[in-house]
Amino acid sequence: MADSVKVALLGCGAVGSEVVRLLHEQADDLTARIGAPVELVGIAVRRAGRDRSDLPVKPDLFTTDALGLVKRDDVDVVIEVVGGIEPARTWLVEALRAGKSVITGNKALLAEDGGSLHDAAAEGGADLYYEASVAGAIPLLRPLRESLHGDRITQVTGIVNGTTNFILSAMDATGAGFSEALEEATALGYAEADPTADVEGFDAAAKAAILASLAFHTRVRAADVYREGITEVSAADVASAKAMGCTIKLLCIAGRTADGGVSVRVHPAMIPRTHPLAGVGEAFNAVFVEAEAAGQLMFYGRGAGGAPTASAVLGDLVAVGRNRLAGVRAASESAYADLAVHPMGEVRTRYHVSLDVADRAGVLASVAGVFASHDVSIATVNQSGRGAEASLVIVTHSAPDSALAATVAELRQLDFVRAVASVLRVEF
Amino acid sequence: MADSVKVALLGCGAVGSEVVRLLHEQADDLTARIGAPVELVGIAVRRAGRDRSDLPVKPDLFTTDALGLVKRDDVDVVIEVVGGIEPARTWLVEALRAGKSVITGNKALLAEDGGSLHDAAAEGGADLYYEASVAGAIPLLRPLRESLHGDRITQVTGIVNGTTNFILSAMDATGAGFSEALEEATALGYAEADPTADVEGFDAAAKAAILASLAFHTRVRAADVYREGITEVSAADVASAKAMGCTIKLLCIAGRTADGGVSVRVHPAMIPRTHPLAGVGEAFNAVFVEAEAAGQLMFYGRGAGGAPTASAVLGDLVAVGRNRLAGVRAASESAYADLAVHPMGEVRTRYHVSLDVADRAGVLASVAGVFASHDVSIATVNQSGRGAEASLVIVTHSAPDSALAATVAELRQLDFVRAVASVLRVEF
Repeated sequence: MADSVKVALLGCGAVGSEVVRLLHEQADDLTARIGAPVELVGIAVRRAGRDRSDLPVKPDLFTTDALGLVKRDDVDVVIEVVGGIEPARTWLVEALRAGKSVITGNKALLAEDGGSLHDAAAEGGADLYYEASVAGAIPLLRPLRESLHGDRITQVTGIVNGTTNFILSAMDATGAGFSEALEEATALGYAEADPTADVEGFDAAAKAAILASLAFHTRVRAADVYREGITEVSAADVASAKAMGCTIKLLCIAGRTADGGVSVRVHPAMIPRTHPLAGVGEAFNAVFVEAEAAGQLMFYGRGAGGAPTASAVLGDLVAVGRNRLAGVRAASESAYADLAVHPMGEVRTRYHVSLDVADRAGVLASVAGVFASHDVSIATVNQSGRGAEASLVIVTHSAPDSALAATVAELRQLDFVRAVASVLRVEF
Repeated sequence: MADSVKVALLGCGAVGSEVVRLLHEQADDLTARIGAPVELVGIAVRRAGRDRSDLPVKPDLFTTDALGLVKRDDVDVVIEVVGGIEPARTWLVEALRAGKSVITGNKALLAEDGGSLHDAAAEGGADLYYEASVAGAIPLLRPLRESLHGDRITQVTGIVNGTTNFILSAMDATGAGFSEALEEATALGYAEADPTADVEGFDAAAKAAILASLAFHTRVRAADVYREGITEVSAADVASAKAMGCTIKLLCIAGRTADGGVSVRVHPAMIPRTHPLAGVGEAFNAVFVEAEAAGQLMFYGRGAGGAPTASAVLGDLVAVGRNRLAGVRAASESAYADLAVHPMGEVRTRYHVSLDVADRAGVLASVAGVFASHDVSIATVNQSGRGAEASLVIVTHSAPDSALAATVAELRQLDFVRAVASVLRVEF
């Protein structure tokens, strides 16, 4: 049995420095929980010169040679909190093949090429843990990976991006438009200077791929995920949702399809205010899971931030450390199901369509005819006149997304349709 | 490596029969997830004659000799869903000492004498899993036991009894009194014919003991838990809570105390409607966890019912089965912290006190003087006149429960206090 668990830390930014701090502050508890002390043997950083005297470690632990640190014989576990595809992939594959366990929060790498990491872990007989990669501090992947293994998950619906949830919550609370709410989020530090990855849904799509892979025991990559961001969501959409007793959230939705495949998508959607996900405000994250036997479950908490993410990393470290001392490996990834990922056009969903139309005889009949011609059934219609114009709000029953999209495209061509004011999917 | 995982099932009621059904329906998935098939080798039942032909098993699997079944050489794992202290304890200690892993949902036994089970598991080198014992299908114990091991939990606050949550939700929604809401719960099958264990908080107290033990790495027994039920909660209390923007929930609260001990209690409390726990309606359960690094987390789902509970049992079975095939044992209980459990009198909380008083000069001064004499600071006062009487609603700042209780006792003695209409603790 090893006398300590020797850890190499790659990255020392917001998350890395919290990991260092927690390793120091909770050293006694960690020792008791793992069964041996944790020893931080090196920290790889990009720039050598930076002042890190506030961290409770000796200055000679820092190095700019991450690969050299990973290769050291005295490293048992590698914690990576740098992010990005390369050079992180090279480091982690090197570590795993050499039998060193890896803990990472690198969602981009996992969603782009998780297979390479899982294969390297199997090859080296090492553990690969990544609780921090989705929904920060929320213990979510472990339950999906382990606790619900005896059940059959049918759908996972998540609010997994704090920036967009902050923006949409602000729009809902104040009636602000997207740009105004984004400005507020930026000023308060909830949005980055370049918010593209968040507001265009790239971050959520990576997390959706990871969640879908775990939930359905198959491999889903970020490129398989249909993605729409929130930049087109308007104050009018939010008001329209409110009028229906709904709120708008950026959801990632991974579900089983009727023919045994899966669909994975990220887009804004209207959900009823009575749904547990509707109450998830500010920058919080939550993931709603539906399983055949368990029924509805929800996991809620902070999705980002140095300390919450570091908490997830340390939870993984306790598991990995115990496994090493016991000389065992955790349950590896199971991708046995190998399911087909369906394109968005085949996914069944519902649409909320707002039209500005000329207020004259026959308009409603024509509009209804367009829906019918695409085999889309209408659930509710609300018409309100405004002089020569009328506003028509139509909510459909469930239909393939391609049929709904074709319906909207055809509506846009009609001369008496002045504008398609908004199109939003409706969930739950 | 064993060619199958051989399971003995003790109990075949609502949960047991769902376990049988799921073992059959999900046999292929379970085999893939565990790495070997699960074989049900026997089912112990109380009565032999009952018709169980609807279950997908051969009739010769049933036996009334539970202990004999547990002792059989070909049993690897014992699943116990009978409940109660004895004879369950005898069966499970026998199994664990013989190296057979145990999966149980027996909260009463775990809260009364979990130590005996954990000791027997250590002696036999067997696994003891009990996800089903608290909050049914919600994967909660595993995250507490494993995912948050790298963090320091400061408080766990749960709605862990579906019956009382259904009753309090109904009182909140309709303004009904306790008896009326209990009748509705009974009629709908949410309350048992004898609802004592639920409405008096015994069930929640057992779960509180289990949660506190896991969260704080110490041993807490049901007898250590302060307990108050909901039978005294009136329609007036619920209305009073509403007026303050609050709702009333039966909470189990396990927290660290300032001096390094813990306190564990079950009682009704007012919580703000904006708190995530306030939105937990009907018979749902939720557990709100606060940890130093992770911040606030919440776990939500169905707390009871055959299928949800069976889902938790099968999740445990996958873990136990994998461990057996790998020849390892899961992380055992850690009770290294061995913390003192403080009596309720020392717990700091806040009180909401409603008084009917004579409407005359000096009354408010006298009442305020009673609070001050016990060193209890008043946060808000609301006085409203009603002819010769007045109603006085006082909310205090945080103070030791004993000081608050003494204050209320003294108020009851004052001649101008016609009645202490309600006393409720306030949380969050």
